[in-house]
Amino acid sequence: MRSHYCGELTAKNISEEVTLSGWVHRRRDHGGVIFLDLRDREGLTQVVFDPDRAESFALADSCRSEFVVQIKGLVRARPEGTVNPNMVTGEIEVLGHELEILNRAATPPFQLDDHQTVGEDIRLKNRFLDLRRPEIQQKLRFRSKVTSVLRSYLDENGFLDIETPILTRATPEGARDYLVPSRTHQGSFFALPQSPQLFKQLLMVSGFDRYYQIAKCFRDEDLRADRQPEFTQIDLETSFLGQEEIMSLTEGMITNLFKELKGVDLGTFPRMPFAEAMEKYGSDKPDLRIPLTIETVSDLMTEVDFKVFSGPAADPKGRVAALKVPGGNSLTRKQIDEYTKFVGIYGAKGLAYIKVNDKSDLEEGLQSPIVKFLPVDVRQALLDRVEAQDGDLIFFGADQTHVVNEALGALRCKLGADLDLYTCEWAPLWVVDFPMFEETSDGGITAIHHPFTAPSCSPGELQANPLTALSQAYDMVLNGTELGGGSIRIHQAEMQQTVFELLNISAEEQEEKFGFLLDALKFGAPPHGGLAFGLDRLVMLMTGSASIRDVIAFPKTQSATCLLTQAPGEVNEKQLKELSIRVRKPVAE
Amino acid sequence: MRSHYCGELTAKNISEEVTLSGWVHRRRDHGGVIFLDLRDREGLTQVVFDPDRAESFALADSCRSEFVVQIKGLVRARPEGTVNPNMVTGEIEVLGHELEILNRAATPPFQLDDHQTVGEDIRLKNRFLDLRRPEIQQKLRFRSKVTSVLRSYLDENGFLDIETPILTRATPEGARDYLVPSRTHQGSFFALPQSPQLFKQLLMVSGFDRYYQIAKCFRDEDLRADRQPEFTQIDLETSFLGQEEIMSLTEGMITNLFKELKGVDLGTFPRMPFAEAMEKYGSDKPDLRIPLTIETVSDLMTEVDFKVFSGPAADPKGRVAALKVPGGNSLTRKQIDEYTKFVGIYGAKGLAYIKVNDKSDLEEGLQSPIVKFLPVDVRQALLDRVEAQDGDLIFFGADQTHVVNEALGALRCKLGADLDLYTCEWAPLWVVDFPMFEETSDGGITAIHHPFTAPSCSPGELQANPLTALSQAYDMVLNGTELGGGSIRIHQAEMQQTVFELLNISAEEQEEKFGFLLDALKFGAPPHGGLAFGLDRLVMLMTGSASIRDVIAFPKTQSATCLLTQAPGEVNEKQLKELSIRVRKPVAE
Repeated sequence: MRSHYCGELTAKNISEEVTLSGWVHRRRDHGGVIFLDLRDREGLTQVVFDPDRAESFALADSCRSEFVVQIKGLVRARPEGTVNPNMVTGEIEVLGHELEILNRAATPPFQLDDHQTVGEDIRLKNRFLDLRRPEIQQKLRFRSKVTSVLRSYLDENGFLDIETPILTRATPEGARDYLVPSRTHQGSFFALPQSPQLFKQLLMVSGFDRYYQIAKCFRDEDLRADRQPEFTQIDLETSFLGQEEIMSLTEGMITNLFKELKGVDLGTFPRMPFAEAMEKYGSDKPDLRIPLTIETVSDLMTEVDFKVFSGPAADPKGRVAALKVPGGNSLTRKQIDEYTKFVGIYGAKGLAYIKVNDKSDLEEGLQSPIVKFLPVDVRQALLDRVEAQDGDLIFFGADQTHVVNEALGALRCKLGADLDLYTCEWAPLWVVDFPMFEETSDGGITAIHHPFTAPSCSPGELQANPLTALSQAYDMVLNGTELGGGSIRIHQAEMQQTVFELLNISAEEQEEKFGFLLDALKFGAPPHGGLAFGLDRLVMLMTGSASIRDVIAFPKTQSATCLLTQAPGEVNEKQLKELSIRVRKPVAE
Repeated sequence: MRSHYCGELTAKNISEEVTLSGWVHRRRDHGGVIFLDLRDREGLTQVVFDPDRAESFALADSCRSEFVVQIKGLVRARPEGTVNPNMVTGEIEVLGHELEILNRAATPPFQLDDHQTVGEDIRLKNRFLDLRRPEIQQKLRFRSKVTSVLRSYLDENGFLDIETPILTRATPEGARDYLVPSRTHQGSFFALPQSPQLFKQLLMVSGFDRYYQIAKCFRDEDLRADRQPEFTQIDLETSFLGQEEIMSLTEGMITNLFKELKGVDLGTFPRMPFAEAMEKYGSDKPDLRIPLTIETVSDLMTEVDFKVFSGPAADPKGRVAALKVPGGNSLTRKQIDEYTKFVGIYGAKGLAYIKVNDKSDLEEGLQSPIVKFLPVDVRQALLDRVEAQDGDLIFFGADQTHVVNEALGALRCKLGADLDLYTCEWAPLWVVDFPMFEETSDGGITAIHHPFTAPSCSPGELQANPLTALSQAYDMVLNGTELGGGSIRIHQAEMQQTVFELLNISAEEQEEKFGFLLDALKFGAPPHGGLAFGLDRLVMLMTGSASIRDVIAFPKTQSATCLLTQAPGEVNEKQLKELSIRVRKPVAE
């Protein structure tokens, strides 16, 4: 029904007879002729109908926004002075000869151009109209290209695309599972997978060597701006490769993607140990576009006559740290108050600061409510430590280490955005050398990644010092977002049992939940490891989208009331009864 | 951990030092040296350890089947007389210098070579071992190639890969839905999609123009040899293309696939109207590899003195038909009895036949229990009708038309297989011109495809003659298997409402179930249509697999008791309680 897409006509097509099909984006009546801007997936073309052809003129006149039409006509150059250099098709127009209305449209509840003034609820309820916006079309199209480029790379590198089940058993990923009551096994249920983790490990045990899947995963959690209860993972796993080789292969995947689709060379990703990331950036996913770093000053503060600092400085679990903002002494009192409120979200009880007006004058040159508590030699040592210059501002965090890290880490990112401190557009890195475990509030230990992650030491060493043991886990971070994470997995049953025991999983529970995995490890499991990337997040980042709803065609929403926005349906009585029967245990038990 | 895959070493690698990693497929102790056949994804290589290197010799000696090892060694030509021409690597062997045992293996519950003598239950329970069999590895690898080739074709043809939700509303596909109780909306539930049908139509309304997805779909039905409750569809939809264009595009997709992966030219697919397929082949998915056809002989039988024939011949809903088997008069009485039993499965009450020994002698030359009921002129007309030759056998069906079609259609396929009548390896075709509706047993009507299929006529004509109206539906059939089916969809609200009314769906139900679709059709829906292919079935066909379990890594089974074979899990008390709460309606309602 078309010879060309609307968006692809240029001066090269002048004098060609064309057939176009699409939507009436705009209809104008100007100087006795009718202009229709015809829209399809590829763009807009201006079509002109003049009264010489009475039939098509009358039909064009009757068209309204979003009518679906097919036109035949002649491509010609636009009259001088009417060329639109902002449009791909701006040099030409089509003189319409014939017009057929393929479908009419009622007046839309909102104009596509006006989407920003229309509430998101209305747009989501009429998602089929909202999705006509060129902006979101481009983003979903970009997403399609992303998966295509990723797949090509993985195909070329010998990865096999293997599907794993959606109706599966509950796996121990930590979040709440969606459960599907079984019809044939009453009182039993399937779980939707939080990730294909165990399946991909089994595929390695089976010898598939390199596996990937763009996999739907599910977590029954509340919605967030960057999280949907169903999400998509680029999931991969390899055998007989070490950590460095897996990192290099997947780094290549992402650099290739950015080169192909954005023309950007991400370079070689720096590596940063987890401990350094926490210390200098207060985060395990530091945004390296921002040049600010956090400096520990605890050692300077142990003796000062200021409990707020000396307390945490002396506490092994406490920290006093400084965050220097170059040129920051122009911040107003009001701005500083706002930042104080901001760090409060992360548990900080205040936000001490020093404005460095004249660093050569340690008495009068430092402007701060707290400077009076600091002896002059501490002031000097502090300025030296953070390499302060006149005009800088120094923020302080002093509290439990994790509070300081979270508060100053978040403040660092906020300052970066507020003051536009970015030194580059893209800042990727690998965070490595994660600890295996962390302490829980009740004194137990929990896995930082998942319990299948291999430690960097032997089972005996792990048992002796679980909290200081490092894992062979690695996260890929871009612009402060975790793009993907993975690890070398445990491939020997003995090590896996050691980890289960440290996590206080009883032998019985091990057998019940992970018997098949322990079995598999006993029959010749190869060394293996892999990674999972969040596709939704990757596309958000690459398209500069603030909301996940811009990169998913049919997102779920809190207030959703129609299929388009995917609220669960109401049960009718018959279905409710059947569902109850499925859930109930058989009477015989 | 490897310089080469085991399977890729040839004479070209002689004198190279290589590193291999993989599984010990077989260990032999022969003439004082140890032979390890080392296996990885790509194949086997023979590695030889001699006692000169005591350490690696001892390690090799300690290896058992399925141990995971890494070896370093020198590729050399096999000694004369020991070359194995059946192996890719049969000209060479590796002289092992070093060996590291990466993981040990307990004695496997079955030998990979012995899988045929091992019960399927044991193999499925130990699926991670079963999947090591080269045969199934090849099939899953082939599946991965199939999706890769299909995706490339669709990418090149402007299709966008767009994901649709898995947690969705019940759609009216006819089968039983899997239901997922909602946590946040108690008494409500999600359904897992039986297909992305409505979503892809909405994507067309949104202007995406060409969509595809390799999509997981779900039907809560019992298992079959070629059906799993979760299955994979190659799902696609286009706008502004007519039926012929869509058929040509998707025919190109399949011919390209066969050319790329099997080196087979499927040629141009013939088109066959549904009525002809039923009449001549007794099936809407005729296997055209088999040259037999079914001929109607009702008109010859109306007057014969044999109620079994004359009854159906006179009944407008009845049919008498003949199926000629060239050379079939060599079939024994026992074989014919078995075929009689076989057609009984399809409701046939018997299986009349005539053996044509000498067609020139209409009295003695025809051997049959029923020939005595047929006047000589009818005998002659019958032989002429089916173009019988001496040595042929003619089977008869006489009953309600649908019984005759099913019975003779199935018999035709069985004869084709039993007597190896196939005239070619691949026989594709399109079946077209399906009726819109068929009568249900209670006198109502039901859609043959789905209620979104466009008829070939106007709403008025459809209303006047619903049962004779044809649809714009089309099925792609290969070797008697339906590979895919699709249709032009209804794109105008008026036509959609007419179909809903004919299907006796009340205005209220229309609004409740399909309100969003009717809405979407009112705001500028383009003409659109598409197709869905069954990936599992396609791969089965292309790999010659009799069971769907050969083309799915982790299939579900009836007797499954472990995660590998995906039985639903048992609920524990806490989960059962939570699940019950999710299902129960809130008390307030």
